[in-house]
Amino acid sequence: MNSVLTIAGSDSSGGAGIQADIKTIMAHNLFAQSAITALTAQNTVGVFGVVDIDPDFVRQQIRVVFDDIRPDAVKVGMVSSAAIVDAIAQTLREVGARNIVVDPVMVATSGAKLISDDAIAALVRELIPLADVVTPNMPEAALLAQRDIAAHDDMVAAAHAILAMGPANVLVKGGHDADTADDVLVSADGAQHWLRAAHIETPNTHGTGCTLSSAIACGLASGQSVEDAVANAKAYITGALEHDLVLGRGSGPLNHAYRLFGQ
Amino acid sequence: MNSVLTIAGSDSSGGAGIQADIKTIMAHNLFAQSAITALTAQNTVGVFGVVDIDPDFVRQQIRVVFDDIRPDAVKVGMVSSAAIVDAIAQTLREVGARNIVVDPVMVATSGAKLISDDAIAALVRELIPLADVVTPNMPEAALLAQRDIAAHDDMVAAAHAILAMGPANVLVKGGHDADTADDVLVSADGAQHWLRAAHIETPNTHGTGCTLSSAIACGLASGQSVEDAVANAKAYITGALEHDLVLGRGSGPLNHAYRLFGQ
Repeated sequence: MNSVLTIAGSDSSGGAGIQADIKTIMAHNLFAQSAITALTAQNTVGVFGVVDIDPDFVRQQIRVVFDDIRPDAVKVGMVSSAAIVDAIAQTLREVGARNIVVDPVMVATSGAKLISDDAIAALVRELIPLADVVTPNMPEAALLAQRDIAAHDDMVAAAHAILAMGPANVLVKGGHDADTADDVLVSADGAQHWLRAAHIETPNTHGTGCTLSSAIACGLASGQSVEDAVANAKAYITGALEHDLVLGRGSGPLNHAYRLFGQ
Repeated sequence: MNSVLTIAGSDSSGGAGIQADIKTIMAHNLFAQSAITALTAQNTVGVFGVVDIDPDFVRQQIRVVFDDIRPDAVKVGMVSSAAIVDAIAQTLREVGARNIVVDPVMVATSGAKLISDDAIAALVRELIPLADVVTPNMPEAALLAQRDIAAHDDMVAAAHAILAMGPANVLVKGGHDADTADDVLVSADGAQHWLRAAHIETPNTHGTGCTLSSAIACGLASGQSVEDAVANAKAYITGALEHDLVLGRGSGPLNHAYRLFGQ
């Protein structure tokens, strides 16, 4: 069984963070491992507490995983400080990690800010250049590319600005558009693929970004091309949103297991 | 979808701790939430680092979960300090948690000690009395009951000694016996059920205890009786052991998804 390592925060409510990643990886019949960067006391209403983990301990978690069950792909999510970003990037270089997906998590679905400004700078400088795929949503792409994003053309322009930071591929996700949920995958070689989808009207989008990025990592860990991994992940997240769980008082979780048990 | 909360440590290698619990809960088509008590930098060979989480933050994680998506059952695993045990017990009483399964984790499959002596005393005093089911293995039952366990009669006697601490049911697990894997469930009303199973010869038992206790919590969350929940959990763990994953250089993980994808 191939393995995927998630390097991300913990969400006590189970809908996002390493919990969403583990559920996604298991739904793809792969073996999930995790290096926790931060703990959150969180539910579908908001983030009520955050504890950052010492960068050296983040590094140690990654190292002991690579020393034993070597991951076939790595997904990086919430990284709240520059020191943690630096520790992750350095360790991934040292262990020769491949198939790296970076989800530049900045704001939780509930609106809580999850990253400091110097961590964003470190992300751009250290981690994004290592990525096979970077997966910003529209607000994250706007912030990284430092430009407004209103139309599809803006998404492509932002993707090119992020590609200039060094990753192999950028997927700008259009789920924050009111009408459509079209994503665009732009590659360093100039290729451009649109992934079209209808906007799914649901308040239950907690953990959508975490789930999509780990699903892409699952595809890469299974030997798929970036294009196929992204297309399959888009199909998975669309189904998980369509079968959303009506749980909690806020933005509820997806059904990560929707393919496993029928409805 | 009903929900199970796991209160336990994190295992970076994904085979034990909240990672095993989340995989088990998902395999039972239930919604997994988690409150993390400690982080370990761990793989199938050993535990290389432990970070305890502040008891107040453990408490906050449990509270925000109960405030929103109220768990139908709770599993408590690794609790490394007396202060964390006290925080968990007090919070579970405050929120009126029900269907509580306490796995008195003391030593990892790899041999590493995971609990302090004063935490064991707190476990006996504060947490075990709240439990619907306590699930010690033979060494843990011997330590809790302060008696040697060699034969089946000793397992029953140890169960009665632990019942005197106040839980409703005690399951003493016989998997450490060289020949059989017979468990005995003894209840406060005097009922005694043996769960017979052949010893499965495999080095890959990492996370067995975590998995069994969360599978019992899954049964309780689904409305099963304690007897049925324990019997179904025993069947699940037996299958997960039979389909063990050959991963890592040490005691490898179970296949938590063995029922979902066929072989």
